[in-house]
Amino acid sequence: MKTLIVLNFKTYAESTGANAVRLATIAEKVAADSGATMIVVPQAVDVFQVAHRVSIPVYAQHMDGIQFGGNTGHILAEALAEAGAQGTLINHSERRLQLAEIDAANQAAKRANLTTIICTNNITTTKAAASLRPDFVAIEPPELIGSGTPVSKANPEVVKGAVEAATGVQVLCGAGISKGEDVKAAIELGTNGVLLASGVTKAADPEAALRGLVEFV
Amino acid sequence: MKTLIVLNFKTYAESTGANAVRLATIAEKVAADSGATMIVVPQAVDVFQVAHRVSIPVYAQHMDGIQFGGNTGHILAEALAEAGAQGTLINHSERRLQLAEIDAANQAAKRANLTTIICTNNITTTKAAASLRPDFVAIEPPELIGSGTPVSKANPEVVKGAVEAATGVQVLCGAGISKGEDVKAAIELGTNGVLLASGVTKAADPEAALRGLVEFV
Amino acid sequence: MKTLIVLNFKTYAESTGANAVRLATIAEKVAADSGATMIVVPQAVDVFQVAHRVSIPVYAQHMDGIQFGGNTGHILAEALAEAGAQGTLINHSERRLQLAEIDAANQAAKRANLTTIICTNNITTTKAAASLRPDFVAIEPPELIGSGTPVSKANPEVVKGAVEAATGVQVLCGAGISKGEDVKAAIELGTNGVLLASGVTKAADPEAALRGLVEFV
Amino acid sequence: MKTLIVLNFKTYAESTGANAVRLATIAEKVAADSGATMIVVPQAVDVFQVAHRVSIPVYAQHMDGIQFGGNTGHILAEALAEAGAQGTLINHSERRLQLAEIDAANQAAKRANLTTIICTNNITTTKAAASLRPDFVAIEPPELIGSGTPVSKANPEVVKGAVEAATGVQVLCGAGISKGEDVKAAIELGTNGVLLASGVTKAADPEAALRGLVEFV
Repeated sequence: MKTLIVLNFKTYAESTGANAVRLATIAEKVAADSGATMIVVPQAVDVFQVAHRVSIPVYAQHMDGIQFGGNTGHILAEALAEAGAQGTLINHSERRLQLAEIDAANQAAKRANLTTIICTNNITTTKAAASLRPDFVAIEPPELIGSGTPVSKANPEVVKGAVEAATGVQVLCGAGISKGEDVKAAIELGTNGVLLASGVTKAADPEAALRGLVEFV
Repeated sequence: MKTLIVLNFKTYAESTGANAVRLATIAEKVAADSGATMIVVPQAVDVFQVAHRVSIPVYAQHMDGIQFGGNTGHILAEALAEAGAQGTLINHSERRLQLAEIDAANQAAKRANLTTIICTNNITTTKAAASLRPDFVAIEPPELIGSGTPVSKANPEVVKGAVEAATGVQVLCGAGISKGEDVKAAIELGTNGVLLASGVTKAADPEAALRGLVEFV
Repeated sequence: MKTLIVLNFKTYAESTGANAVRLATIAEKVAADSGATMIVVPQAVDVFQVAHRVSIPVYAQHMDGIQFGGNTGHILAEALAEAGAQGTLINHSERRLQLAEIDAANQAAKRANLTTIICTNNITTTKAAASLRPDFVAIEPPELIGSGTPVSKANPEVVKGAVEAATGVQVLCGAGISKGEDVKAAIELGTNGVLLASGVTKAADPEAALRGLVEFV
Repeated sequence: MKTLIVLNFKTYAESTGANAVRLATIAEKVAADSGATMIVVPQAVDVFQVAHRVSIPVYAQHMDGIQFGGNTGHILAEALAEAGAQGTLINHSERRLQLAEIDAANQAAKRANLTTIICTNNITTTKAAASLRPDFVAIEPPELIGSGTPVSKANPEVVKGAVEAATGVQVLCGAGISKGEDVKAAIELGTNGVLLASGVTKAADPEAALRGLVEFV
């Protein structure tokens, strides 16, 4: 399976609106030049325009466990799918959900044919999330987020533990990822790839940062 | 001042994606034929395409009180503005916020030149919301939402009370609104217009429903 | 193992303050006269006085996944334990938690030697909750809560499915339970007992209701 | 009016359970020896035992805007009042509430004859909170909480602004308060007193810290 690079745009100025389209275009180019699969994850508001400008997969950052109905201000799976999204993060550390909501969101996403990545914070919650049968779980130990220290090197046991706990579900890891060697270490620990944000979006040269990430792929 | 009809698309099938564009186009036509100002309020995911297809104002259903940064899954004022939104609901009854978040969202919206409508549930919270200086407050008594009984006729005192409590801030009212006479009653009570959803989005003939709404304007 | 009757006092007038002590005393008497284990679950405010007046186990209705520190307005495991609680509900349908909070609350409870019951809404979330290794999971299908229709008779498959999904973790079931035959059906489906509230607290004669519950034990 | 010292016990080890009773007893003694009114604010679980051991006012740290009913895991005004509480904080920075919840909690507290202190973060939200007519608002600028820098000295304008904004409602201030001169400055700015926590609960000698606080009263 190809190495997966999931690039979370968050709400950074460098990856909002026209900048989101620009960054997605760079990711598309680097993906084409490398053996990696690049997935871009813009804000809900930017999903439509990004998905209409690049051919690499576009995922949403969050989705609610709702159906068509009276849900003002919520994010609907069917709206994301129609706008061009192919998948979604669920339960990101900056947008945690209740257990029953994660389950409902995962099921709602499946109904709309969206690939699901449930984010988790440790081995125990990874096992719980995996038992809901998403396509992926993405473990991000909170103490390493934004630390500059890559989880795949700082805490290989937690990544290995997550891979074991997530029986039958593919695993990504995140927190502190910014270099090709971090990605390499993540793959060697049994994951399918990484989830990252500021290491690329806030880099002086995002294209160089992305090329660096996939240098060992 | 022109009568304001704020049409909340919620996450109904009839007002999602291509249907959102279609409904916004109908609203644009009815607005042009009448003396009313029509504002359409699609889901965050649909704001971009709706705003690029109609020339009437497009508002968001919800916005977070955040700035550029690490806010995965949140709705950023600057992203909405760049996508073409001209305003936003804040604190809708289906997406309530903490008091400090309402204040932060209202301020963030102003920074991005978005018009703000803070939703409230009674006279007391209307006064509190008005003291945050949004452009509008919209009072919707929860017991009348989806009741089919228009607030402007069922409970004129609460609407009048809201108009008095919101010193210096314009008032809309909602809940149970579906006919022209409901709008007329709302205006006579001192409001600038109405906030409604299912009365139009779920109507057998949305265009006829919209034309009916503005018949006395 | 003895049949478990977990009696949630919620915030009913009939089970608040002095009434909570009175109802707990009745439960203590019925427990002594029957082969069942009765656990009473008063509000946090009432835990201290109830635990000092009866010798049957007292559980809390909710607990936060926190440690000693700056957590104004939260419920601390160590405070519950010192007040006399022996266990706690976590993630009740009226007080849902985020997945990471459920995990943290379960671990915090263990540190304070509190028995944990994680509440769930379907088979999938039961499996997820069980993977966090609480002492019990309690499944309560939301559509049957307060319906008067006992889950153990209306939907035996969901109870059986929960028992299978919760490998190694004991299961309770709730929703619509009010009679001895409902408890009997629950035990026959493989659970260790039931979680109930209004069937007893709102009964004209709570003692008779409790005696009825354990008639087949 | 007497200077008000509101002492939030949070969930510190030094102010939980038996330690909460001990600290409340110290506060009672210092109050008797000084001209100040001391209010102690233990966790919900500790309200009953603290209120039965001291004669100074005991307030809760949080209360929900609910009535008797099915509200598992929530804090009920009537339960607090029956346990001996005389008042409650609402919307503390560590337990923020939605605007409609603050209003409902304030009203529920009044029904149970509890004095209310709504916490706020800036001048704007102070004005909004005051318009709900609580007994007090307590302004705590988040950037100064736990900073060691007293709000009454670091940012006198925000305190003065809060006093002006809260027309007809008494004002407390908090954040960084630990000394008598901080209290003196707060009173001189027009407040009725202070809200504090770690300055006393975490002090090597809490009694000395409390005596220091009231030295200029």
